[in-house]
Amino acid sequence: MKVLLVFAHPEPRSLNARLRDVAIAELQAQGHEVRVSDLYADEWKSEVDRADFPALEAGARLIPVQASKAAFEAGALTDDVKAEIEKLLWADMLILQFPLWWFTMPAILKGWVDRVFAYGFAYGVGEHSDKRWGDRYGEGTLAGKRAMLIVTAGGWEEHYTARGINGPIDDLLFPIHHGILYYPGYDVLPPFVAYRADGLKEAGFEPLAERLRERMRTLPSTSPIPYRRQNAGDYLIPTMQLRAGLETPGETGFSLHLRAPVD
Amino acid sequence: MKVLLVFAHPEPRSLNARLRDVAIAELQAQGHEVRVSDLYADEWKSEVDRADFPALEAGARLIPVQASKAAFEAGALTDDVKAEIEKLLWADMLILQFPLWWFTMPAILKGWVDRVFAYGFAYGVGEHSDKRWGDRYGEGTLAGKRAMLIVTAGGWEEHYTARGINGPIDDLLFPIHHGILYYPGYDVLPPFVAYRADGLKEAGFEPLAERLRERMRTLPSTSPIPYRRQNAGDYLIPTMQLRAGLETPGETGFSLHLRAPVD
Repeated sequence: MKVLLVFAHPEPRSLNARLRDVAIAELQAQGHEVRVSDLYADEWKSEVDRADFPALEAGARLIPVQASKAAFEAGALTDDVKAEIEKLLWADMLILQFPLWWFTMPAILKGWVDRVFAYGFAYGVGEHSDKRWGDRYGEGTLAGKRAMLIVTAGGWEEHYTARGINGPIDDLLFPIHHGILYYPGYDVLPPFVAYRADGLKEAGFEPLAERLRERMRTLPSTSPIPYRRQNAGDYLIPTMQLRAGLETPGETGFSLHLRAPVD
Repeated sequence: MKVLLVFAHPEPRSLNARLRDVAIAELQAQGHEVRVSDLYADEWKSEVDRADFPALEAGARLIPVQASKAAFEAGALTDDVKAEIEKLLWADMLILQFPLWWFTMPAILKGWVDRVFAYGFAYGVGEHSDKRWGDRYGEGTLAGKRAMLIVTAGGWEEHYTARGINGPIDDLLFPIHHGILYYPGYDVLPPFVAYRADGLKEAGFEPLAERLRERMRTLPSTSPIPYRRQNAGDYLIPTMQLRAGLETPGETGFSLHLRAPVD
């Protein structure tokens, strides 16, 4: 496979950087081709602003959705964004790697999403009718490709479980998994999460690295998170409400959007 | 009250900017004192990096948590961050206003959180023992103050309801409400959300503005989201698991962390 790893940590000697190198080495050992976008090293620009739309007239009001649409259609996005789009189209597999800061990705990676996921590319794709509501949530430009997160967290694993105070990690990551990755079409694999990262002793590194290598070895065969496809019958169009009776009785929250296990 | 409004939209003629001005005017009409951090206008720096820690030795490894702790304790944070901390300490009420991009805040606002919420200020506060696990989730530096979000979303309100495909808005915002605002002590008010913002016609503006004015008028009396306090008995320490039997039978997900309504 062709793998793009987008990396968001400022320190080349960080635990994240070491884990990144472990992942890359294992992917290459498995015969995969790997490219890396190292956002800090590349001095990635985080903010969506007028400079992203060179074709926008000087006095014109910046409406980000419209400016993004016009620039993508005209091939007038900035070169850094075009390069990332080219990499996303090249890759069969996208890995986003970051430390969990305030329960989500660092600003620089959010800025990669905000700027690269252009209208017409990652959203605003496909027809809207009484049968379809755009190509999204399982369909779209990036359909047929896989994605996953590699995340480090300072907190304890227990604090991120079903009854843990931070909330379940799968729910905390849902806006990324479902809203950023599944939305433009990716099949999303379960995340790799390293907990208590700040306190990790050197003796703890190799077991963690081996767990990551195992995930890299099994990328092609790992089952994606079974999110429900938008246009395949589970949702009413255009209200996009989940049809009654599809969930486990009493179930609420994000897990409604997972298909039930096959009996 | 003293109100700090942190604003994150790049366009001075945007719907967001108009709503901001409506909010400010109403707050001032109610006798409140208002300060604004306009992140784009101020060219806020989004990325946590070495430049944030001028006292860090040139060759030293950047460990963000440790660097943040050392810089906060020594009064060695950068001037832009110190100014925001001073405003947060001044304000009785914090409002974060932003367009919902990819189901969360724009990068520039995430970068404000990442940089301003320093160790020793917004996290890493208080003792850890068998009775307490730090001053967080309802306690901490910002306890006794209020916070709320003003958000615009392109999508339909139905798509953000309990069964809507995007997930419930309260769950999508939980990592911000609970993880960013309640964590350092804020009482978090329900958000103001304007849906279908991209397609809003001029005739739709005044009703929206009036709904926002009403929220600004009732800030002091609005009940906060009833999150459970960490150190008040609902959670086991140190695993931070919610004690058995506190929730509605069958309940799962983020809503576990809300206190049950009083009978």
